[in-house]
Amino acid sequence: MNLRIPGPTAVPPEVLQAGAAEMINHRGPEFAAMIKRTTEGVKTVYQTQNDVATLTASGTGAMEAAVVNLMAPGEPVLVITIGEFGDRFVKLVDAYGGRLTEQSYQPGQAADLNRIEDALKANPDIKLVFITHNETSTGVTNPILPELGKLVHRYEGTLVVDAISSLSSVPVKTDEWDLDVVLSGSQKGWMTAPGLAFVSVNQRAWEKIGKNPQPRFYFDLKRHTDSAATGQTPWTPAVSVWYQLDKAIEMMLAEGLENIFARHARAGQMVREGVRALGLELLADEGVESNTVTAIKVPEGVDGGKWLNVARDEFDTVFAGGQGSLRGKIVRFGHLGYMTDADLQDGLQALKASLDRVRQ
Amino acid sequence: MNLRIPGPTAVPPEVLQAGAAEMINHRGPEFAAMIKRTTEGVKTVYQTQNDVATLTASGTGAMEAAVVNLMAPGEPVLVITIGEFGDRFVKLVDAYGGRLTEQSYQPGQAADLNRIEDALKANPDIKLVFITHNETSTGVTNPILPELGKLVHRYEGTLVVDAISSLSSVPVKTDEWDLDVVLSGSQKGWMTAPGLAFVSVNQRAWEKIGKNPQPRFYFDLKRHTDSAATGQTPWTPAVSVWYQLDKAIEMMLAEGLENIFARHARAGQMVREGVRALGLELLADEGVESNTVTAIKVPEGVDGGKWLNVARDEFDTVFAGGQGSLRGKIVRFGHLGYMTDADLQDGLQALKASLDRVRQ
Repeated sequence: MNLRIPGPTAVPPEVLQAGAAEMINHRGPEFAAMIKRTTEGVKTVYQTQNDVATLTASGTGAMEAAVVNLMAPGEPVLVITIGEFGDRFVKLVDAYGGRLTEQSYQPGQAADLNRIEDALKANPDIKLVFITHNETSTGVTNPILPELGKLVHRYEGTLVVDAISSLSSVPVKTDEWDLDVVLSGSQKGWMTAPGLAFVSVNQRAWEKIGKNPQPRFYFDLKRHTDSAATGQTPWTPAVSVWYQLDKAIEMMLAEGLENIFARHARAGQMVREGVRALGLELLADEGVESNTVTAIKVPEGVDGGKWLNVARDEFDTVFAGGQGSLRGKIVRFGHLGYMTDADLQDGLQALKASLDRVRQ
Repeated sequence: MNLRIPGPTAVPPEVLQAGAAEMINHRGPEFAAMIKRTTEGVKTVYQTQNDVATLTASGTGAMEAAVVNLMAPGEPVLVITIGEFGDRFVKLVDAYGGRLTEQSYQPGQAADLNRIEDALKANPDIKLVFITHNETSTGVTNPILPELGKLVHRYEGTLVVDAISSLSSVPVKTDEWDLDVVLSGSQKGWMTAPGLAFVSVNQRAWEKIGKNPQPRFYFDLKRHTDSAATGQTPWTPAVSVWYQLDKAIEMMLAEGLENIFARHARAGQMVREGVRALGLELLADEGVESNTVTAIKVPEGVDGGKWLNVARDEFDTVFAGGQGSLRGKIVRFGHLGYMTDADLQDGLQALKASLDRVRQ
């Protein structure tokens, strides 16, 4: 099966086998050595010297961790949303009692730095901003991260970036861009099964966290980084997924970050060109298309759900559909993590063949 | 290595290999079939017709789920604690703003039904009770569960049972004993790696949950059971651990619940007899010893930490030490999940040999 969804992504055979190793004591020296190794590796991929916590949870757990650690009940916050995963921050902020200012964009659009500055000017009490880097639901990468940290800091705010489906595939320069809190998840470019999620925290964010009375326990980031310093996790970790991560990071560092980023840039371009060559349109505005997932508009008169089913059942290729209001309106083609050019070409073939079949 | 800790436990080779299968779409038909199968299997082991949610989290995540779904901020609750994991409920209740009445017991003691009734009588506003079934930190199984549900209900309360390290190894009759919310975790008798946790919810508990304003999102149980009804999880699940669980449940059902319980009863007895034959004392009071973990008092003059290290380094056997105030004072011998009589006999040999070495 050609799994062409934006996560979980294919896991290399050697990583799958690494995950099949026997259990160990999660309070013993082998685990301590492993958490030290993976934390260093994750920090390298994050391009950061900040603390990074590894949580046993999916990416949404990392998002919740960011919200409950950073945001006080009743605190005014700005959420910039360009799709479903931005909307998830909206829901989280709402669930935990934040006073929400939501800045949303049309599906396919990227966020605009000037509009964000306008919102910060208009709401001087906002000191916490959430944004999605790569919006998996629309195939858009927000290009403003290099400037956004500085902007938010000028307004004395703290910035939380959901980089779950970008970091490890496309450049996220956590330290150079001064990003306060950055999230990622194992099942994306990390070439690992789902179940682990990452949260980086810089000094500015720790200070805010230290003063935040919002209740938290399982996702209490301080507990995680304090435990990690002693070679442990506060709660029993997903050991087998961690084995996978350990191996996958070894492979990623061997490939090299720049090569990984170049490979994803090439993959994105190949898929976009292939899609356009089929006469199909992208959802993303030009210039902000994601290099990890391409959202393709379902042509007039085509049943999007049927297209997906035919691709899966007759051409052994699994694409993702649209979420929320985009259900039936787009097909999403994942191109991140462990993949070859042939996987992508096969994916493009399957996309065409299944569309032809549905149009018959 | 003979992993004789009370979790993570050894995972059978066929379960490890099942976990090494390729990734699938977690929103596709294969996952839908799997979650249906595992949920049915988990319910069989739980001996329940209640809803059971499967969370991507460790057991502590299931404990947090119970607290945030059931307990309103400021609500008076009773936590019965006989050790570290009962104390974890105390911390969780405290973190989420409960008004705590704590009833604690000495290490090695089981909870007393009359004392619990006294507490409920003395605090008629308490409508929520937390208890640990099997206290991993002291090797004690509370024997009062068959009566406790009825008692709590007489006082119009709801009962939450942490059965993380018992259910799947020793009988927990969720429906017959009318237990409202019951927790378990994959890395115990379930013969699966850590990373998945279970929460059963009956009608009484759902009604309480429906009225509870406590913020929750990742651990919102209603989202989990609603999603499961459509063959999905609300957030990306730990797919590879789920593969393991699927295979492990198949093995458990093939063995049969009564055989599993008999095997653990025999294991507990074998280890206790072996330990006593070495002239060592158990921490647990007589009659309430756990059949999944045995806590052994470190004899006078012996360095408990050294004993553990020698067992690991020289006899390839990993025991667990004491937690909190019991650090250095006990050695814990796990006997749950995937194990043979030979594993336990080897464990007893290693226990003796390492003790002899430390005493030299």
